[in-house]
Amino acid sequence: MTRLPLPTSERLLLGPGPSIIAPRVMRAMAAPVLSHLDGDLVALLDDVRARLGRVFQAHDGAFTFAVSGTGTSGMEAVVANMVGDGTRVLAVVTGYFGDRLAEMCRRYGADVTRLEVTWGRAVDPEAVRAALDAAGPRPFDVVACVHAETSTGVLNPVKDVAAVAHEFGALAIVDAVTSLGGHPLDVAGWDLDAVYSCTQKCIGAPSGMAPVAWTPAAQARRVACRSFYFDMGLLEDYWVRRKYHHTLSSTLIYALQEALVAIEEEGLERRWQRHERHHLALAAGLEAMGLGLLPPAGERLWTLNAICVPEGVDEAAVRRTLLQTFSMEIGAGLGPLAGRIWRVGLMGASSTPSLVLLFLSALEHALQVAGHRCPPGAGPAAASAALP
Amino acid sequence: MTRLPLPTSERLLLGPGPSIIAPRVMRAMAAPVLSHLDGDLVALLDDVRARLGRVFQAHDGAFTFAVSGTGTSGMEAVVANMVGDGTRVLAVVTGYFGDRLAEMCRRYGADVTRLEVTWGRAVDPEAVRAALDAAGPRPFDVVACVHAETSTGVLNPVKDVAAVAHEFGALAIVDAVTSLGGHPLDVAGWDLDAVYSCTQKCIGAPSGMAPVAWTPAAQARRVACRSFYFDMGLLEDYWVRRKYHHTLSSTLIYALQEALVAIEEEGLERRWQRHERHHLALAAGLEAMGLGLLPPAGERLWTLNAICVPEGVDEAAVRRTLLQTFSMEIGAGLGPLAGRIWRVGLMGASSTPSLVLLFLSALEHALQVAGHRCPPGAGPAAASAALP
Repeated sequence: MTRLPLPTSERLLLGPGPSIIAPRVMRAMAAPVLSHLDGDLVALLDDVRARLGRVFQAHDGAFTFAVSGTGTSGMEAVVANMVGDGTRVLAVVTGYFGDRLAEMCRRYGADVTRLEVTWGRAVDPEAVRAALDAAGPRPFDVVACVHAETSTGVLNPVKDVAAVAHEFGALAIVDAVTSLGGHPLDVAGWDLDAVYSCTQKCIGAPSGMAPVAWTPAAQARRVACRSFYFDMGLLEDYWVRRKYHHTLSSTLIYALQEALVAIEEEGLERRWQRHERHHLALAAGLEAMGLGLLPPAGERLWTLNAICVPEGVDEAAVRRTLLQTFSMEIGAGLGPLAGRIWRVGLMGASSTPSLVLLFLSALEHALQVAGHRCPPGAGPAAASAALP
Repeated sequence: MTRLPLPTSERLLLGPGPSIIAPRVMRAMAAPVLSHLDGDLVALLDDVRARLGRVFQAHDGAFTFAVSGTGTSGMEAVVANMVGDGTRVLAVVTGYFGDRLAEMCRRYGADVTRLEVTWGRAVDPEAVRAALDAAGPRPFDVVACVHAETSTGVLNPVKDVAAVAHEFGALAIVDAVTSLGGHPLDVAGWDLDAVYSCTQKCIGAPSGMAPVAWTPAAQARRVACRSFYFDMGLLEDYWVRRKYHHTLSSTLIYALQEALVAIEEEGLERRWQRHERHHLALAAGLEAMGLGLLPPAGERLWTLNAICVPEGVDEAAVRRTLLQTFSMEIGAGLGPLAGRIWRVGLMGASSTPSLVLLFLSALEHALQVAGHRCPPGAGPAAASAALP
């Protein structure tokens, strides 16, 4: 019964998430616990709903809230209410999470057609058009697409994908797990129908809540939801009409609210620019070190960088050195990209000039330990030059 | 964009949950965030699994873990993996949560027979036997029963219910949301098949995780799970085999571990006795004040007390006084019991001698404000006399 101790030193979280959490957000969790039906807590939920609406840039008519679960629970909540037996879904699969979205739709009874895209590339909206056009007599009901594909570092043009979907009468489900708060995302302006995200990446809170934007268009074509936990009607009864559904964690709400306040203090536009700036500095540094990114320029995320592992380098050994010497976490590749890429997240409080320089220096060291030489100091120097 | 401030003063949480959280558990959440696949975090998950196994008193072969969601997500995880289209379920409905469990089974496709019991009474295992016996040619696959019915303050004899279920070849699903850590519960000794709970009641952590004990017997009769988030196979792949499934919140795990450590330091038996002692003191105090409990003696929970609202008293006004004058929360009645009972939880860190005396004094005051007289000081005095 000896206890395993809690961690005592900070991990530099530069993987695909969770990201570093700002001290103000950590402190918020120390606020006194309120019950899920306390008047003060439900007032806070209204505040959080309004803030999420602004960060999603959703219409006032949209129901913006957070599922009590991780990002995957947000995905399931959207799917469970939009997809039922026989729903025709065109799933755009540009990586692991597009695949998960397709699988989720299949589990909920959908007739899923997969539009497969080479991992590391963005989908071409014309390919979506062609697939929708080839639907035959029964058109697609839903097009499901990941905005920021965390497994490949690719940004998909979901605005154009949604526009094409609407041309064919289909609704657009968009996964914004790795984009909300880091990349421009405009639910109302881009006319997206149902969007979900997470709290532990660009939002800057701990994981455990899944922000969702559920629009009137999605509501109008809602299916009977088999799940009780993810039933959008019951969730809206709770978040809006204060009818008991589940015992939401006030602690996680405090953290989410504080993170959303910080986002609005920074300003959405400025926050996006910050993510872009540090991604570009990182990319410049990597290039100077002779390292490539998996996606071509123009299709790259600012939030998650998929770095190609150089020939002959043991990628796991490099991650081990980063972890052991610098307490720095980066991610490995998933699925067919295992062993072929590293995934470096610069999201929320993890997107800073200091961390860009530190990561590049640490990576140079770890590569050297692994027997791979880079031009000494070239990475940080090039990144430095790219920073304002 | 002015922010709604976080609460700054403690709420005395004496409702149906969340309960008061010990400072040591709050502090645990300040530990540095680790990612869901970090070696240090997965070691902690092993520690939590073992502790949950001991608190559930489950066999070593059982999979004990926690779903990333509230207690209701634990209910859905168990149902989603044990109940499919056409599964014959006998749902014992002794209150709101038995009803929810029946509804959840129905949503997952079960052919549900409800065994209705008067709200405020425990189920008689012989009634379960009669219902199972009357099944006709197709026997029941599952008997679903709530151990501690939070809506009525009733303790159901789930050990006997499970034994009867097994006689007829059915498996037993048990809801231990309001009993785990507060009432004796012996998953192995009582031969329960699948049990779920929550973290924010007798366990003493914030809400957001749902402990589950999933036994080999349940595993052997698992159905194909439609849900991805609640798929027991994928959850076991993550918790046991470290295969990515969702981004579990290390923050909530730290709190859960600390709460479980505190439980084992106190000792399970001693913890149950503490809950019994304070319930009995409260009951003695209430009796001296001329107030009754809804369930008869012998069917009462130690953790949640359903107090009958005296004739002519505005129950909401009493709760309002408790909240405004004492920052003390108690629960209202649910469903048919709305307006008829108060629900007072003495769970985890909320089960103390001080809180028993304070609650009785505060209730006396609030009743007086509402125009209802009790013998002055009688409640706290009688409770005092019942305390060691």
